[in-house]
Amino acid sequence: MMKYFLKIYLIFLSFIISGQKNDSLRLKEIYNYNLTKSNCYENLRSLCKDIGNRLSGSVSAQKAVEWAGIIMKKTNLDTFYFQKIMVPRWVRGDVESVFWKNQNGDIEKINCTALGGSVGTNGTLEGQVIEIKNWSELEKYGKKNIKGKIVFFNRAMNPTYISTGMAYGSCVDQRHNGASRAAEYGAIAVLVRSMTLKFDKNPHTGSMSYTDSLKKIPAAAISTFDAHNLSEALKNEEFSSLSMNLSCKQLSDTISYNVIGEIRGTKFPKEIILVGGHLDSWDIGEGAHDDGAGVVQSLQVLETFKKLNISPQRTLRCVMYMNEENGNRGGKHYAKIVRKTGEKHIFALESDRGGFSPRGFSIDGTKLQLGYLQSFKSLFEPYQLHLFSKGYSGVDIGPLKDGKLCLVGLVPDSQRYFDYHHSKEDIFENVHKRELELGASAITSMVYLVDKYGLPNNNLIKK
Amino acid sequence: MMKYFLKIYLIFLSFIISGQKNDSLRLKEIYNYNLTKSNCYENLRSLCKDIGNRLSGSVSAQKAVEWAGIIMKKTNLDTFYFQKIMVPRWVRGDVESVFWKNQNGDIEKINCTALGGSVGTNGTLEGQVIEIKNWSELEKYGKKNIKGKIVFFNRAMNPTYISTGMAYGSCVDQRHNGASRAAEYGAIAVLVRSMTLKFDKNPHTGSMSYTDSLKKIPAAAISTFDAHNLSEALKNEEFSSLSMNLSCKQLSDTISYNVIGEIRGTKFPKEIILVGGHLDSWDIGEGAHDDGAGVVQSLQVLETFKKLNISPQRTLRCVMYMNEENGNRGGKHYAKIVRKTGEKHIFALESDRGGFSPRGFSIDGTKLQLGYLQSFKSLFEPYQLHLFSKGYSGVDIGPLKDGKLCLVGLVPDSQRYFDYHHSKEDIFENVHKRELELGASAITSMVYLVDKYGLPNNNLIKK
Repeated sequence: MMKYFLKIYLIFLSFIISGQKNDSLRLKEIYNYNLTKSNCYENLRSLCKDIGNRLSGSVSAQKAVEWAGIIMKKTNLDTFYFQKIMVPRWVRGDVESVFWKNQNGDIEKINCTALGGSVGTNGTLEGQVIEIKNWSELEKYGKKNIKGKIVFFNRAMNPTYISTGMAYGSCVDQRHNGASRAAEYGAIAVLVRSMTLKFDKNPHTGSMSYTDSLKKIPAAAISTFDAHNLSEALKNEEFSSLSMNLSCKQLSDTISYNVIGEIRGTKFPKEIILVGGHLDSWDIGEGAHDDGAGVVQSLQVLETFKKLNISPQRTLRCVMYMNEENGNRGGKHYAKIVRKTGEKHIFALESDRGGFSPRGFSIDGTKLQLGYLQSFKSLFEPYQLHLFSKGYSGVDIGPLKDGKLCLVGLVPDSQRYFDYHHSKEDIFENVHKRELELGASAITSMVYLVDKYGLPNNNLIKK
Repeated sequence: MMKYFLKIYLIFLSFIISGQKNDSLRLKEIYNYNLTKSNCYENLRSLCKDIGNRLSGSVSAQKAVEWAGIIMKKTNLDTFYFQKIMVPRWVRGDVESVFWKNQNGDIEKINCTALGGSVGTNGTLEGQVIEIKNWSELEKYGKKNIKGKIVFFNRAMNPTYISTGMAYGSCVDQRHNGASRAAEYGAIAVLVRSMTLKFDKNPHTGSMSYTDSLKKIPAAAISTFDAHNLSEALKNEEFSSLSMNLSCKQLSDTISYNVIGEIRGTKFPKEIILVGGHLDSWDIGEGAHDDGAGVVQSLQVLETFKKLNISPQRTLRCVMYMNEENGNRGGKHYAKIVRKTGEKHIFALESDRGGFSPRGFSIDGTKLQLGYLQSFKSLFEPYQLHLFSKGYSGVDIGPLKDGKLCLVGLVPDSQRYFDYHHSKEDIFENVHKRELELGASAITSMVYLVDKYGLPNNNLIKK
C-alpha cells in the first residue's frame, strides 16, 4: 500500500516539476490581483463598521448572516445558501463590575468582562479572594481554604514561547475550566487573568464551560494590569473582601446560519475544496482579526478565481461558519450534514488566527498529504511563507476530521494576535491592509494548487 | 585556493554539527532572556520620550549622544567612547505650507513636509503644477512645458512587491534626485508623493540631494492622500497655480559623535564583531522604528552577553552611528578610522529596517561567508527566521565594505515599516514589545555564533 502511495506521489512530483513555471506565474498573478484590486479590506471594513460585533444569537449576528448573503451575491458566485443551525444565546447584560474597598474606604475598580457562558451574580456577590496559579495549588489549598471564596486564577501566558498561540494554549484551561474546578472546592466565583501577553488595562473575554454535576458559579476576566494590582493588593492585605456584579445570562437556543457560497468545479464538481472562517465574534470589539479577517479572506479566494477567470476543476466552497466562539455548533452541524449526505471533501482550509503577515500553513493530514503540500513550498518562498509543518488546523473545520481529509490552517505571524483577541481592541483599525491581502493571496494560491493537482486520500490523484 | 576554503568550510561544518545541541540551548537562553528581562523596550521608550526626534546637528541629537553614553555606562560595558565627527545641520524652521485656491476662491491646504536638505522658498513661491510619473515623462515634456513650473512627482510605490523595501527602492529616486532633475528643465520647485504604500494624510520626509552645477530649488513631500487629490484637481483643472512656503535652510556643519561601546574579547580581543544602528533620526515623529529600534537592539546584544555571563572570544562592539539620515557622515568616518588604524573587523551587522517580527538576515559577503552563515539556518528555524539570502546590509556599515568583511542586515517583516518611516507616526507606541525583543534575540544569537565559530575571510577560522 505504501508503495502505491509512493508511486502516486512520484507521479505528482513530475507534475509539479513540469508545471512549476506556470504555477509560479499564476501565483504571481494571484498575489498581484490581491495586492492591488482585492475587495477583502473593504469587505472587512463593512463587516466591522456596518455590522460590528456579532455574538451567536444576537441581532447583529443575524445582520451579519444577511450581510454575508449580500456580499456573496455581489461576488457573483454560482450559488450561495444558508445552512440553518441552532445556536446558544448568551447575553452580557448591562452590569459588569468588580471592585474592592481600600483601607481608606475608597472603591478600587477593576476592568472586567464576564466570560462567555458565565451565569450572573444575581445582584452583588461579595467574598474573600484567593490567588491560584495552577491546578496543584487549588488542590493544595483545598476546600478548607477555598470554600466561600472568590478564586483568582493568575497564571500568566508564558512569554518565552515564540508562537503566542502556544502560550495561549498552555494557559487557557484556567479560563475554560476554572469555574467548575473552583466550584468543586466550594468557591463562589472566579476571576481569571486575561489571555494576553500585553500588559494593559483591557480585559479579554472568551468561552468557558461548566461541568453539569457542579454548581455554576460566575466567572469574569480581568486585565493583566488589574491582575498584577490585585495580586499585589492581596499580598499587602489591602482589602478583606471583593465585590462582583455580573448581569449576564444564558437564554434559550435560537436559530442562526452558516453561510455557504460556491464556484462549481468544471471537471470534478462533486469534489469539494472548502475554505472558511467564522462569521460570529465575541460581543466586544468588532471581531476584526477574530475572525472577520478569515471570513473576508475566504471569500476572497472565490472572488480571485472569478476575477482572474480561473475555472476550478473542483468545486470551491467558502463557508462562513456561525458560533465558533461559544459552542462550535456551525462547525459540528456542517460536518454532520457532510457525513449524512456523503459529500466528498478533498481539502479544507481555515483562516482563524488573525489577519497578520502570513508565515505558512499548519497541516493536519496524513504523512503523504503533508509531504505533498510541502512539495509546494518553493512556490511560496518568494512570498515569504516558510512554515509547512504538521499541526492543528482550526475549530470550525475540525469536526470534518476523519483520518482521510486533509485539514489546513493558515499561520500568520502570531506576535500581535493576543493583544486584540476577544477584547475591545479587536477592531478594523488594527488590521493592516497588506497583511490581510497577503493572507488572502496565500490561501488562494494554496487552493489553486490543490485544485489543479488534487490531493492524495483514498483515491487516485486526478489531474 | 577554492579547495582550501572548502576544507575550512568542512571543518567548520563538523564544529557546527557537534556544537549544534549546545548552540540551540544557548540560543534558547538568549531568547528567553530577551523575552522576559530585556531592557531594550524600556530603552526605546526612554530614547523616544525623554529625547524624542534627533536630527543631526540639533540640540536633541546632542542629548541623544549623552543619553547613549549614560545607557552604555549603565550596561556596564568594558569601555565606551565618543567618536567625533562633523555633521550637516539642516533646520526645518517654522513655516511649511502648500495650498491652492479652488474655483470658489477657498484655500485648499496640502499636508506637506520639506525634504531634508531642501532650500527654502524665500517667502511664498507660486507656480503652475505639472505632474510627472517617471523620468521619461520629464524628458518628453521638456523645458518648454516645465520651465517656471512646480514639478509634482507622483509615481506611487508598487504594491505588488512583497518586500516593501523593494517597492521603496524602486521609487525613492524621485525624492532623492527629483529637485535637480526638474531644475535641469527650469522647474522652480518640486512636490513629491510620500514614500509609503499607505493611503493616508501623513507626509513622509527623507533625504534629497542637489547636483552642484544646477540651481537648488525647494522640495517637499506631500501625503499619498493629498497626492491623489492634487492629481485629480490637476485633471479637472480646479486651480491654475499653487503656492508653497518653506522656511527650511542649511546651516554650517557642526560637531557630533558616533557612540561606541565594547565588551573585550577574551581570546582574540583584536578581532571586532560590530553590531549597530543609527542614533540620529528625522525631525518629525520620534525615530522609533528608524532607528531607535536598531540602536536599542544593538546595545541589547552586549547587555545579553553581560547578563548571561557569556564572555565573547572576540571584541563585541556596539556602534550607535550619527547622521545616517542625511549624509552618513558617521558611517563614512567610522570606516575611515578603521582603515587608518587597521583595526580588524570580522563581521558587521546592522539593524535599520524597523523593530518588527524578524524574518532573517540579508547577507553581503563572499560566497563562502554566505554558505557559512546559511549553515546556521536550522538553529534559527525554531524562532521562525528563514531568510538567509545574499543582499544589502545597511547604510551605516556599508562604508566598511572591502570585499573581505562580511556585512549583514537584520530583515524584519517589512509590511508596516513604510506606514511610519520618516513621518510623525514613527513613535514608540507603534513599536511592538515582543517584536522588538525577538529582533534583539535574533541578532544576539547571530553574533553569538559568529563569535564562537569565527568567520572565513582571508584568515583561517579560529575556534
